[in-house]
Amino acid sequence: MSLPAVAVVGATGAVGSRVVRILEERAFPLRELRLLATERSAGARVPFRGETLVVEPTAPEGFRGVDLCFLAVPGSATSRTLAPQARAAGAVVIDKGSAFRMEPEVPLVVPEVNPASVRGHQGLLATPNCSTIQLVVALQPILRAGGGLRRVLVATYQAASGAGQGGADELAAGSRDAAHPPRVFPRPLAFNVIPHIDAFDLAGGFTQEELKLRRESRKILGLPDLRLSATAVRVPVFVGHCEAVYVETERHLTHAEARAALAAAPGVKLVDEPAAAAYPTALDAAGRDDVLVGRLRPDPDEENGLHFWVAADNLRKGAATNGVQIAELLVGEGLL
Amino acid sequence: MSLPAVAVVGATGAVGSRVVRILEERAFPLRELRLLATERSAGARVPFRGETLVVEPTAPEGFRGVDLCFLAVPGSATSRTLAPQARAAGAVVIDKGSAFRMEPEVPLVVPEVNPASVRGHQGLLATPNCSTIQLVVALQPILRAGGGLRRVLVATYQAASGAGQGGADELAAGSRDAAHPPRVFPRPLAFNVIPHIDAFDLAGGFTQEELKLRRESRKILGLPDLRLSATAVRVPVFVGHCEAVYVETERHLTHAEARAALAAAPGVKLVDEPAAAAYPTALDAAGRDDVLVGRLRPDPDEENGLHFWVAADNLRKGAATNGVQIAELLVGEGLL
Repeated sequence: MSLPAVAVVGATGAVGSRVVRILEERAFPLRELRLLATERSAGARVPFRGETLVVEPTAPEGFRGVDLCFLAVPGSATSRTLAPQARAAGAVVIDKGSAFRMEPEVPLVVPEVNPASVRGHQGLLATPNCSTIQLVVALQPILRAGGGLRRVLVATYQAASGAGQGGADELAAGSRDAAHPPRVFPRPLAFNVIPHIDAFDLAGGFTQEELKLRRESRKILGLPDLRLSATAVRVPVFVGHCEAVYVETERHLTHAEARAALAAAPGVKLVDEPAAAAYPTALDAAGRDDVLVGRLRPDPDEENGLHFWVAADNLRKGAATNGVQIAELLVGEGLL
Repeated sequence: MSLPAVAVVGATGAVGSRVVRILEERAFPLRELRLLATERSAGARVPFRGETLVVEPTAPEGFRGVDLCFLAVPGSATSRTLAPQARAAGAVVIDKGSAFRMEPEVPLVVPEVNPASVRGHQGLLATPNCSTIQLVVALQPILRAGGGLRRVLVATYQAASGAGQGGADELAAGSRDAAHPPRVFPRPLAFNVIPHIDAFDLAGGFTQEELKLRRESRKILGLPDLRLSATAVRVPVFVGHCEAVYVETERHLTHAEARAALAAAPGVKLVDEPAAAAYPTALDAAGRDDVLVGRLRPDPDEENGLHFWVAADNLRKGAATNGVQIAELLVGEGLL
């Protein structure tokens, strides 16, 4: 086919605006870019490849002639409304939200990890939760080198922008004024740490964010019984999710073997020189597309246990970049 | 004996100033309070029980007649100089630093956990690292109810004031001005997360802060072989350390049994009602003496696995309050 017409829905949001920027950065092949957003944001002007695009209000007619649609809207309900409209217009939809991720016929794709999952797609693909993406990019090489994963435990340190631009704005306001009332987060986030992201599952006591890490990792890695538990925590950072990961492999991996596996893994940048105090922080990850991994060390007690630390830009690799990479994969495989 | 004469060394620092405040709050029985600090802070005036005390420069003569000395000074070298001076003057020393904690003849005391350790003290007792104290207060009831601990994994979220007042000041400055150069922390802490506290042990890849959690917990709990690993992380919070804890007990504990054990434990305040979104945050812990525990939930895969979340004021229960509680224990046992 000729170059695709592309739409970005939610183009003025934290993720959508980065999709536009990344399409430009990566010179994604397209013949037309259409930017859609809410009525409130319509009329906004966005630079793209030396031109200025005007944001239009999202409406079913807006999808006419679109071949590829990035959905970067908050809330599953909006995705459930818009995805069928875009598909009805003939577009392939890449949704950054959680509405469709666990549906069996929807590929849940991290291009470095499960690229083959895009084959046979039915017009709708999903990009995983931000905290899941960086985890599986780092787990996959350990899984392969270690002949399997016996279990994974994760504690996250998640940035405010994981809750969208409104989350980042609330952190900024709260940092200036301690009395700023929280609306996006369940408690004031400035100079605080909140062990609560998304709704609680009252039966088990885990939050949906923690359960997403489990479910989505299982689907992406193709390990439906993977033993993985998480504690998901919001921290007062604007951009950049971090994770403290503990993993037990089936086969013993030496430190050197684990290091080599990570160093060679696609999408991973190893930043791990304790002697030089080199390890990734949230700020190091912000603005980059790599998943940064450091603090790799064997557990002192469990022969097959390894600890490491992962940092990534939750808006880029955790959302927008991953979505654009899925689109590149579709183009490369002739699946668009 | 008559009421003791008490000295606080480092009385103007983050921990020392809280020792003074807590001695007043808890109406600690004393006949005289002497405040010592560096030359730079000498002359400062500190209110205490309706009077105004003047801070004196620390000097060997300052310990004359002192029965009980709280050492709240930064750096092991200073403790190693001052502790013998205070002991030579006849004072019992309670050191908040790490210089003496692992010496076999020095009791490492968390009064709720190992009060009997103060018996037979030789004039020098140590209060553990802040991150250790809140961990063992929460672990002890699980250990008892569960018939032992198979293993413990901890990821910490530690406040800037864990590095003293200078750490808190640097976070404040960095939060106002992103270009503020870090001196106390290895990287800018404002709106960042840094997986590096204290020096690296290059052999194993853990930091000293992480190794302290292991060594000190083993000593306090009387479990020299306890399998415990940690990832210690600095977060942009002024006061209040949090910890995501995973533990496996020897005997299976139901959720209700674990909850009951924590609810009944001295020093623990259970804040754990997912249906009401009740769980502890760092800000909730700041200014309090309890160790707050929440997010208790069984691991979905490991029958004897439990997850929980701990928050405490690192300057109070994590240092000053614990030190004053040790002094109260000494008084109560007639060991001063």
